[in-house]
Amino acid sequence: MTHLESLFAFLRFQSVSADPAYRSQVSECAEWLSRRFAAMGLESVAWPTAGHPVVLARSRPRPGLRTLLIYGHYDVQPVDPLALWKTPPFEPRVEEGKIYARGAADNKGQIMAHLLGVEELLKAGKELPVNVIFLVEGEEEVGSPHLEAFLREHGGELRPDIIAISDTGMVAPGIPSLTYGLRGVLAMEVRLRGAAHDLHSGIYGGMVPNPATLLARLIATLHDESFRVAVPGFYDAVLPLAEWERREWAALPLDDAALCASSESRALFGEAGFTPLERVWARPTAEVNGIGGGYQGEGSKTVLPGEAFAKLTFRLVPDQTPAEIEAKVRAHLQAHTPPEVTLEISPGHGGEPFLCDPNSPDGLAARRAVARTWGREPALIREGGSIPILQTFRRLLKTDILLLGLALPDCAAHAPNENFPVENLEAGIRLNQALLEELARV
Amino acid sequence: MTHLESLFAFLRFQSVSADPAYRSQVSECAEWLSRRFAAMGLESVAWPTAGHPVVLARSRPRPGLRTLLIYGHYDVQPVDPLALWKTPPFEPRVEEGKIYARGAADNKGQIMAHLLGVEELLKAGKELPVNVIFLVEGEEEVGSPHLEAFLREHGGELRPDIIAISDTGMVAPGIPSLTYGLRGVLAMEVRLRGAAHDLHSGIYGGMVPNPATLLARLIATLHDESFRVAVPGFYDAVLPLAEWERREWAALPLDDAALCASSESRALFGEAGFTPLERVWARPTAEVNGIGGGYQGEGSKTVLPGEAFAKLTFRLVPDQTPAEIEAKVRAHLQAHTPPEVTLEISPGHGGEPFLCDPNSPDGLAARRAVARTWGREPALIREGGSIPILQTFRRLLKTDILLLGLALPDCAAHAPNENFPVENLEAGIRLNQALLEELARV
Repeated sequence: MTHLESLFAFLRFQSVSADPAYRSQVSECAEWLSRRFAAMGLESVAWPTAGHPVVLARSRPRPGLRTLLIYGHYDVQPVDPLALWKTPPFEPRVEEGKIYARGAADNKGQIMAHLLGVEELLKAGKELPVNVIFLVEGEEEVGSPHLEAFLREHGGELRPDIIAISDTGMVAPGIPSLTYGLRGVLAMEVRLRGAAHDLHSGIYGGMVPNPATLLARLIATLHDESFRVAVPGFYDAVLPLAEWERREWAALPLDDAALCASSESRALFGEAGFTPLERVWARPTAEVNGIGGGYQGEGSKTVLPGEAFAKLTFRLVPDQTPAEIEAKVRAHLQAHTPPEVTLEISPGHGGEPFLCDPNSPDGLAARRAVARTWGREPALIREGGSIPILQTFRRLLKTDILLLGLALPDCAAHAPNENFPVENLEAGIRLNQALLEELARV
Repeated sequence: MTHLESLFAFLRFQSVSADPAYRSQVSECAEWLSRRFAAMGLESVAWPTAGHPVVLARSRPRPGLRTLLIYGHYDVQPVDPLALWKTPPFEPRVEEGKIYARGAADNKGQIMAHLLGVEELLKAGKELPVNVIFLVEGEEEVGSPHLEAFLREHGGELRPDIIAISDTGMVAPGIPSLTYGLRGVLAMEVRLRGAAHDLHSGIYGGMVPNPATLLARLIATLHDESFRVAVPGFYDAVLPLAEWERREWAALPLDDAALCASSESRALFGEAGFTPLERVWARPTAEVNGIGGGYQGEGSKTVLPGEAFAKLTFRLVPDQTPAEIEAKVRAHLQAHTPPEVTLEISPGHGGEPFLCDPNSPDGLAARRAVARTWGREPALIREGGSIPILQTFRRLLKTDILLLGLALPDCAAHAPNENFPVENLEAGIRLNQALLEELARV
């Protein structure tokens, strides 16, 4: 079976974790993957959970060797809107050097590269330079609801020295990347209530508070004129950017035009004093994800809304914490809400920001592995999104994490026509092998 | 037939103008009303229009007499939510001195009072002291779309000296009211566009403009700290309140507690330096009637909206005009929109504010008629809403308008359990007769 045939077999499983209609396909994918690990000579089990199974496979432990845990997921996003796919999402194909299928980049292609790298070494009769554990879950796309319980139950036996996760991206084609930081997140919903119901804006306009107007004014207090977040103490715990980070990022081929193109925006915008990449990767934000109140249909209706709401998220950076920021934002919102309306704050999900040291021994090992694979040093980057499970791993397994992404910016993860270059599959296999060797030397 | 029987017959017609399912009932109501006027001895026709008929009835013109045009409408609002009516909306009944039925207050009870007043005089064999024209349309509740065309066609024959409209309210029970001012209105929808579609708030948050955040900031520029409208020149044409107006209104039994109760608000709010009544009756406003953008469902979705919109209305007072205010608001919004987002302004409906002089000869005549009817001078009030047809009348018939409302604040117009006191029906009959006499003396 060729590398591509192996990946295609993996991609044909319709392992959509979000939709109960695909439950048996998800299970079959887990069983197939577990058998595949077993056939390589690993000890492998598809562990049942309260949700979808976790595939846990490990090489025969050899004392004195370090242990690498490779995390990934075999579940995929739903395929809607199906009509926008050029070919069926679960019938993988290659076109112009790219593999098209749901899950090609996120995350089956990347986890298969690790699998094939280890398999090749074992097939060649070589001893693995480190003990290897694969932990491949089936619920990443629905927020990993059972991963923490699984780690609490099985984590004690795992005891990895280092974790590798290939579920992030390369900053640009041809630029291998080591992601050493991610933002955290704090979500909340804010609601202002005025009158018990919508009122006639002629009869009452000017007399009673308008929660939509006052909500807009409240949101406007979140930023100052330079678009810094104006919540008192918001930046207290923010680690300043290091000079090397600013230098490294400024050298990346991600100028304003490229960022406008990738975001389909006419223009960039944000906090003064920082470049767009710095703002997204290393600066916290306050964003309105949704706002609503009053009449939203066609034409006009002369009402004063009885209430209005906004859904907010704050992206956090090291060393901010969701709890600290929630307290500060609450105090700010309360201080800026006129007493004539009622303020309700419903806290949503939170996730800690993540930062590891790309100059640690393991970080340097990962960078050497990347350099051997691509013939160039990896770009040292952060990302703006959040991967909450990183903190779970850190907390429960007490070890550091290497984020070695192979997906390209135009991989269309979570979108129609998801794709992954064949050359990145092959590079991923070599990267895995180099990584095992380099980590063994630490 | 008693007064009540006459009104009940009128109220039983399900003359809902907004719903095509009631079209024949609307027509039958017009025909019934026209026959009723004819039976009184008036020349009456239910004129067809492109929509519902206009009933036009006139007393035999006597040269040398002044001519009063009485305007009203025989159409009613829809009855939804029907479940909240204590008894069926088209089966009128009296309970504790109040007539309950759809249209009881708005406007059948009031127009019937005028009809019965004239009818009584004619039945008693008296000559009417002024020539009387009834113009009762069937589309007031849907914005009078064909009234202007009707007035253009027939207005030349009408030539009234004065118009009386009893479609407003009494400021409080037992306080007859002459409404001499109404606010105008200017509606517009404002939309900010950023990226071509919603973006991931982790990947792009901080880098690209957030139209929801920027819309909130834009709305926040509409008012200053004292909640005055901060659009430059907004107050240029505003007539200052006269001392007598402030004094008159301060004496009304409408304190903050009463206004909170009637609006079901916890507290009042608005422009500093004016009382709540002054703000609603004589001060212009900028209100958000609706706002929307991004994710509005349950929980959270970490998107940056691609666009956000607000529906705004500006209530105008004499001598502001919709055209003047639209130009000023447009300039203000453009000046405060960052160039990184696109601003779209869609103008909506507009209506001029209305003001007539309660001390004019006709105004004084109306006040004498009220005083004779109720044994007390009417409160001289304005209202916060807009009646766009007033300007149409003024423009096309070139005469002034008296607003003599008989509806109580709790009449539930446009709501379930609409009602009208029997005593106001009787008072309305006497008011009509006194008004004809007093207007004849001008």
